[in-house]
Amino acid sequence: MSDPVRVLGIDPGFGTLGYGIIEARASRVDLVAYGAIKTESGEPIPDRLLKIYDELEAITRKYSPHESAVEELFFFRNVTTAIEVGEARGVILLVLRRLCVPIYEYTPHQVKMAVTGYGKAEKGQIQRTLKAFLGMSETPKPDDAADALAVAWCHISSRRFPGGVRNV
Amino acid sequence: MSDPVRVLGIDPGFGTLGYGIIEARASRVDLVAYGAIKTESGEPIPDRLLKIYDELEAITRKYSPHESAVEELFFFRNVTTAIEVGEARGVILLVLRRLCVPIYEYTPHQVKMAVTGYGKAEKGQIQRTLKAFLGMSETPKPDDAADALAVAWCHISSRRFPGGVRNV
Repeated sequence: MSDPVRVLGIDPGFGTLGYGIIEARASRVDLVAYGAIKTESGEPIPDRLLKIYDELEAITRKYSPHESAVEELFFFRNVTTAIEVGEARGVILLVLRRLCVPIYEYTPHQVKMAVTGYGKAEKGQIQRTLKAFLGMSETPKPDDAADALAVAWCHISSRRFPGGVRNV
Repeated sequence: MSDPVRVLGIDPGFGTLGYGIIEARASRVDLVAYGAIKTESGEPIPDRLLKIYDELEAITRKYSPHESAVEELFFFRNVTTAIEVGEARGVILLVLRRLCVPIYEYTPHQVKMAVTGYGKAEKGQIQRTLKAFLGMSETPKPDDAADALAVAWCHISSRRFPGGVRNV
């Protein structure tokens, strides 16, 4: 029997960063934890980055994931938004790298395909499917945490059926 | 006589991050150090971010600046470049915030005005002016280090003549 693999999924964001941790062993996948790191838009940017750093570091240390899966973002309203999301992403990648957690990236399309088998699945459909897969009594909230669980699930699927995995 | 103020100027970048440290006391400004942190474009992004973090942390600890001045960037070839620069910027702001160094930001226009009195000054003109101001025998190289010294100089000028300073 293979050793369990614990994966930390992350939906990157500045105002809300979703995270979700699941563990796969043999034929089952268990939910470990999920939630969101929130920062206030009125606070100075360096303070918000420090909060993301400290909280994500604490979560990573607490749950000791073997690997991480980060959702790759492509579309932005404008360049300012892209820089801000880049700032948060830089801090996320730094935390994972400092704690020696291997990082994999997946596009939203890959995540949707992995969870529902349909690349244009809607948010509600993904959440219902995840809830069933992970035997949850409630739909995971907020949406960012559900997205993070979905990218972690996508990574577990990719480990089982190689292809489409890209190490950043 | 007022206490000396040591300022760390930073020209943010992923491939090359310029830094320059100057110290102002009474009527004089002295050069302390300058240089660049370089990362290889072929290396994984988390490794490059870790290098920026570690080297900038070491420089900041070594020179113990009282304040920092970071050049604000506006123009990017495309969204991908904006995200990458954002990633490096996030790590830079995080290092300074973790080490409790106050952060100020200046636009390229403000930097040019402060050094040469002309908002559209060319790179060579800025470098020659800086060289004279700081009593340097050589023009500061690379360009990124010269840009970093210029933004540090801009901050010193703004401290003396308030207005235009913005804390991020």
